[in-house]
Amino acid sequence: MERKLRFGMVGGGNGGNIGNSHRRGAAMDNMAVLSAGCFTRNWERNVEDGTFWGVPEDRIYSNYQEMAEKESQREDGIDFVSIVTPNHTHYSVAKCFLEHGIHVICEKPFTLSIEQAEELKRIAAEHDAEVGVTYTYAHYPVLRECRHLIQTGAIGKIIDVVALYPQDWLLLSLNSDKESYADWIVDPTFSGNSNATAATGVHLYYLIHSMTGLNLDAVLADFGYYPENAPLECISRVLMRFDNGSHGMSWTSSVASGHDCTVDLKIYGEKGAIEWSHNDPLHLRVAPVGQPVQIMCANRDYLCEESRAISRIAAGHPEGFYEAFANIYHEFCRHLLDKKNGTCHDSRDYFYPHLQDGIDGVRYVQACVESQKRGNVWVCLKDASDEASRIAHT
Amino acid sequence: MERKLRFGMVGGGNGGNIGNSHRRGAAMDNMAVLSAGCFTRNWERNVEDGTFWGVPEDRIYSNYQEMAEKESQREDGIDFVSIVTPNHTHYSVAKCFLEHGIHVICEKPFTLSIEQAEELKRIAAEHDAEVGVTYTYAHYPVLRECRHLIQTGAIGKIIDVVALYPQDWLLLSLNSDKESYADWIVDPTFSGNSNATAATGVHLYYLIHSMTGLNLDAVLADFGYYPENAPLECISRVLMRFDNGSHGMSWTSSVASGHDCTVDLKIYGEKGAIEWSHNDPLHLRVAPVGQPVQIMCANRDYLCEESRAISRIAAGHPEGFYEAFANIYHEFCRHLLDKKNGTCHDSRDYFYPHLQDGIDGVRYVQACVESQKRGNVWVCLKDASDEASRIAHT
Amino acid sequence: MERKLRFGMVGGGNGGNIGNSHRRGAAMDNMAVLSAGCFTRNWERNVEDGTFWGVPEDRIYSNYQEMAEKESQREDGIDFVSIVTPNHTHYSVAKCFLEHGIHVICEKPFTLSIEQAEELKRIAAEHDAEVGVTYTYAHYPVLRECRHLIQTGAIGKIIDVVALYPQDWLLLSLNSDKESYADWIVDPTFSGNSNATAATGVHLYYLIHSMTGLNLDAVLADFGYYPENAPLECISRVLMRFDNGSHGMSWTSSVASGHDCTVDLKIYGEKGAIEWSHNDPLHLRVAPVGQPVQIMCANRDYLCEESRAISRIAAGHPEGFYEAFANIYHEFCRHLLDKKNGTCHDSRDYFYPHLQDGIDGVRYVQACVESQKRGNVWVCLKDASDEASRIAHT
Amino acid sequence: MERKLRFGMVGGGNGGNIGNSHRRGAAMDNMAVLSAGCFTRNWERNVEDGTFWGVPEDRIYSNYQEMAEKESQREDGIDFVSIVTPNHTHYSVAKCFLEHGIHVICEKPFTLSIEQAEELKRIAAEHDAEVGVTYTYAHYPVLRECRHLIQTGAIGKIIDVVALYPQDWLLLSLNSDKESYADWIVDPTFSGNSNATAATGVHLYYLIHSMTGLNLDAVLADFGYYPENAPLECISRVLMRFDNGSHGMSWTSSVASGHDCTVDLKIYGEKGAIEWSHNDPLHLRVAPVGQPVQIMCANRDYLCEESRAISRIAAGHPEGFYEAFANIYHEFCRHLLDKKNGTCHDSRDYFYPHLQDGIDGVRYVQACVESQKRGNVWVCLKDASDEASRIAHT
Repeated sequence: MERKLRFGMVGGGNGGNIGNSHRRGAAMDNMAVLSAGCFTRNWERNVEDGTFWGVPEDRIYSNYQEMAEKESQREDGIDFVSIVTPNHTHYSVAKCFLEHGIHVICEKPFTLSIEQAEELKRIAAEHDAEVGVTYTYAHYPVLRECRHLIQTGAIGKIIDVVALYPQDWLLLSLNSDKESYADWIVDPTFSGNSNATAATGVHLYYLIHSMTGLNLDAVLADFGYYPENAPLECISRVLMRFDNGSHGMSWTSSVASGHDCTVDLKIYGEKGAIEWSHNDPLHLRVAPVGQPVQIMCANRDYLCEESRAISRIAAGHPEGFYEAFANIYHEFCRHLLDKKNGTCHDSRDYFYPHLQDGIDGVRYVQACVESQKRGNVWVCLKDASDEASRIAHT
Repeated sequence: MERKLRFGMVGGGNGGNIGNSHRRGAAMDNMAVLSAGCFTRNWERNVEDGTFWGVPEDRIYSNYQEMAEKESQREDGIDFVSIVTPNHTHYSVAKCFLEHGIHVICEKPFTLSIEQAEELKRIAAEHDAEVGVTYTYAHYPVLRECRHLIQTGAIGKIIDVVALYPQDWLLLSLNSDKESYADWIVDPTFSGNSNATAATGVHLYYLIHSMTGLNLDAVLADFGYYPENAPLECISRVLMRFDNGSHGMSWTSSVASGHDCTVDLKIYGEKGAIEWSHNDPLHLRVAPVGQPVQIMCANRDYLCEESRAISRIAAGHPEGFYEAFANIYHEFCRHLLDKKNGTCHDSRDYFYPHLQDGIDGVRYVQACVESQKRGNVWVCLKDASDEASRIAHT
Repeated sequence: MERKLRFGMVGGGNGGNIGNSHRRGAAMDNMAVLSAGCFTRNWERNVEDGTFWGVPEDRIYSNYQEMAEKESQREDGIDFVSIVTPNHTHYSVAKCFLEHGIHVICEKPFTLSIEQAEELKRIAAEHDAEVGVTYTYAHYPVLRECRHLIQTGAIGKIIDVVALYPQDWLLLSLNSDKESYADWIVDPTFSGNSNATAATGVHLYYLIHSMTGLNLDAVLADFGYYPENAPLECISRVLMRFDNGSHGMSWTSSVASGHDCTVDLKIYGEKGAIEWSHNDPLHLRVAPVGQPVQIMCANRDYLCEESRAISRIAAGHPEGFYEAFANIYHEFCRHLLDKKNGTCHDSRDYFYPHLQDGIDGVRYVQACVESQKRGNVWVCLKDASDEASRIAHT
Repeated sequence: MERKLRFGMVGGGNGGNIGNSHRRGAAMDNMAVLSAGCFTRNWERNVEDGTFWGVPEDRIYSNYQEMAEKESQREDGIDFVSIVTPNHTHYSVAKCFLEHGIHVICEKPFTLSIEQAEELKRIAAEHDAEVGVTYTYAHYPVLRECRHLIQTGAIGKIIDVVALYPQDWLLLSLNSDKESYADWIVDPTFSGNSNATAATGVHLYYLIHSMTGLNLDAVLADFGYYPENAPLECISRVLMRFDNGSHGMSWTSSVASGHDCTVDLKIYGEKGAIEWSHNDPLHLRVAPVGQPVQIMCANRDYLCEESRAISRIAAGHPEGFYEAFANIYHEFCRHLLDKKNGTCHDSRDYFYPHLQDGIDGVRYVQACVESQKRGNVWVCLKDASDEASRIAHT
């Protein structure tokens, strides 16, 4: 029985946050060993980075196409690849590895258009390849409890949802001389037709969907721009209509001074409410109607088995962002290992953001863009098209 | 020089919260003495209540018309009346006292229709009477600092606003046998064509306006109903467009389990942000771009004179809802006393919710109702009509 | 049946915090009307203050002895007097009114010596007079729930207690030119032989005792001085030994920058814990062993009747320091009214700090002072003497 | 220039929390690779664990003596060993590796007696070996800022310190059938003569010392026992006297229901205060006298270079306990690498708990035990002996 996987990485040269999040996430439970990579265009730094992280020099590649080809031919080739490149390249890199039958775990947003996302779905199916997308926040241990409570009816039918995600990086960047993330994320060349909705709004979409099980029928979006002539939105306000008839609301901003990464999720049901904040990620606020509010803490015995299973350390010892990442890697690797070992029955047994979640995220972004372009009207997700996207690029 | 006023009260029999809030608010700084009243229809309880609060028996009246007439004829008649009756009667009670030249302080929402509100404005002007409306939350001491900071440019041009106000009273009421507030507030007969927007949303409107100085141009509202066939909304989500070109968002709900009275205000500017929560009313969170977040505390020496002036007790000793009420009464009474003493120059020198704020609140509610009825479209406040209101009553 | 009392006040000219706390506390439920007073030595201001608060001019007195004498002779004389003068005068003022058969409510610390306190007890008993002492913090509504939970065994046998009370007023005062509270509270002439222990430590003593029902057997105190040559301590650390065999700890400081009035109480039992902070006075943190932490909120239906009875306004609307004061006045007045009406059976039915709590507080202070003077050794409260006090005055 | 180290581990079979904390801590920045180990007495699990974590089978050892000998003879032998065995074995394991010239990083408490600790110091010096001790809490990034602020005079001379550390694991354990940590930590055979002081109190000692730079002169301890006949204390209250003349106080408990791992540090200076809580480890509360409280956040640009250097991810993305561990490993490895590369000038340039901190921790524990045994008297750390320790073992 296989207990370990090999993986490669495209992008994630040491300068960036996100490469390390993936590397550390994968290393946390040691279910996958970084074995190949193409980290950056600069060959010297590419080798230096790869070597530092333990990749043998002959498996450090100068381009991802070569990597996909060579690795797919090795007997000990990589099982999956982590894609941590800028948004506009996700599609072509993922396509290449999937066509070589290599599983993919990819940063969000999955692609820049619905068309691209749907095409990757077809290719993945053809090659029996799995795809994970790293929407991180839903994978803190107490949110597993949140999902469990909702699934088992603890708060009854859901009647309202509010999700907020303020950050201030754009304001900081505009007030600074340093080169930053802002330089590419606000540029349509790299980010397509959305900044805030694709960068952070999509996290809220997935959080709501994965926690409540509700499907989003339609959105009505109202975007904000700063500076006023910016090509892409930095504020995204979205009214939401779900398939159970209830509505909700989300808001994300990158010009909210004093907020680093405040993700707030508030779910209101007939029988109670559940709230969570990334500012206090270890705790869950559960409010049964008419009773004292309960504060649940990660890895306590009163939590469900599934939630406790992904805590690594005694209650009260904070696990953070890397560990949330590790929980995605853990489940993704568990899926691939079970598949290898022939013990995988249903991909839904593995709680990580699947290919469909990636596609739905893109659809969410495009529907919001379309709603904004058409004057803040309701747009059904199933009817969303890349039209708006195309307009943005003309 | 007069140092004290006499006032009367219509409504506010001892059973209710709100009568005591007004009585205690007025008593706090002792600038007005309760001298007449018509507290409840039950004569025995009317006398009992009035007597207990020190009203001479001959100035306890069985109806407000008689009270207005008799008091306006006395030399020592009341200077103003507090109206704390159910929403649908505000208009006629206020009209009656204004026509007798008696100043009015009235619960919100001011009236059920724009027409009524505008008519009261005309009558008040004719009789040189002042009108205050008790939107409470903006009158906590640190919000006076908030307003000052914004006025003096501390956070620069405002680029986004988010205001939230969850409560759970309706859920509690639906799960309880006890008679409650819910019984009339959800009934169009007493509340007109809006529940949540008029009961709590309007507080958010006034908070935003009074703190930022921004005028609201237009709204796009999305209402929620619970139970689904309820005649009036219990959730009110509102996209907002301000006269400086920026947008904002508000949400209020009475089916948000675990929330008693959580008013959260978040104001984002180019140079910083200010946030406040009614769950911690003594503190203001000020976040200048790129600097540590500052927590300011009521009555500290570093606050502006105007803010410190309305704190009554040493920093750290909590002042609560009654004291916020008292701050409205303090300013209203200061205005009337200065008027009496001939030292009033500009009514804007007195920071309390004025007649125009009452009217604008009604206009806000009607614009939201109209937006909802017309399918969640933008409605300009200046174009809002009572149309929607009328439809609701047919 | 009498429903209302008349009271007088000694001290509390308008400049001071504490006079208004008493006046507003008494006015809140309107069970006692301010009817006489001797507010300050300056006759003009005395009359001005008294008149403003509604006292008839002929019942404004230039000294407390005259007031006690005249009021005790009137048929409509005051039922009780509020003593809000500096600490060193509590004894003689209280003595004078008690000897005239007038009930007393007095600021803490009750007296400067155990001897004085015990003498007042004898005099009160002789005249069948009641005495209340205004230790405020225990009288927030959720602390009534705390007491109830402990009395009914919710957290089992108590095994540990921690109480903290940092303030920064002394640091502020030392860094300021303004005249302040500090000027007399740090001076032995007015404060006797203790500053921090008597001013704030004694609040912790009473909080612990009134919540847990535990009696304090012995203390071991370690004082801190700032500036180093200050005559009285500004930091008081106290190890405590209770009559059930368990120990506890308290700490208070007036040189803790950033703390206005942070009173933190933490009570640990075999079956759970209860914590409360004055920074969030509406909520109680209840932690049953092995279960989620519960946050209880004032005036919610799940609280005991006794706790709900002293909340005045719907849950979530903050009541503050004045309302806590009002709860003491409410119970004290209820006691006196029942006594007048012949329906008082047991003085323990009225939850306010009684005479014995005042005496015990003084005993606590003297035992701490003695422990410090003798080199941080355990001193039994029953053996505490005024010896240390006497030493301090030589 | 060497960029990487090899290390081995004694103890830390997969069942335990602490082995993984060390492994993940070391892996986080990848400066040391786990290359040898003796994880558990059960040979099969020993191999399974070792293999899973990538240790070649021939470097998995059945006992630590063999490991020390064999590894010290290999050219590619381990540079250091991590000791994560029960407390009573730290001494002999550390001794063995130090005698073979292998550096040591060891769990706290370093040893059970002062004698043992001092002997290890001599041995380490003889072999030019470095020793680190994993007191974790001081190594969160914002505490590096705290230390920097204090060193640069931001809060002036320190006048008071309060440190609290409640947990509830013992209560949980006593109410549970599951085997737990409690089984050995409360047993003198494994823990020597102290439970709470050695297990958690010592963390507070180190936190205070490392943050303030103050040396502890003397302690006065008061222990609590639960159940009452427990051989070792589960509550440790300690009055502290520092070398600058100021005093402080600490408290730790393992019977404080509702607390997983609440470490609260409060440092008060003449010019301001700094507070930190492990419940919110990313933020530092800085309160300059008379100014708004500042909330500083990890990895923000306004922090000092030294603090930012040990944050791995953008501000607001929580780093947790493993990352704090990683910071100790980072500095320890940096020290050893510089030593290897001949660029180490002063061991104080590397901020991790050094050998002397380990010794001082043991001295702190023994002084507290002695104070308790002698009836809660002051005991100077320099005079502390193992006497009390010896008594405990008879």
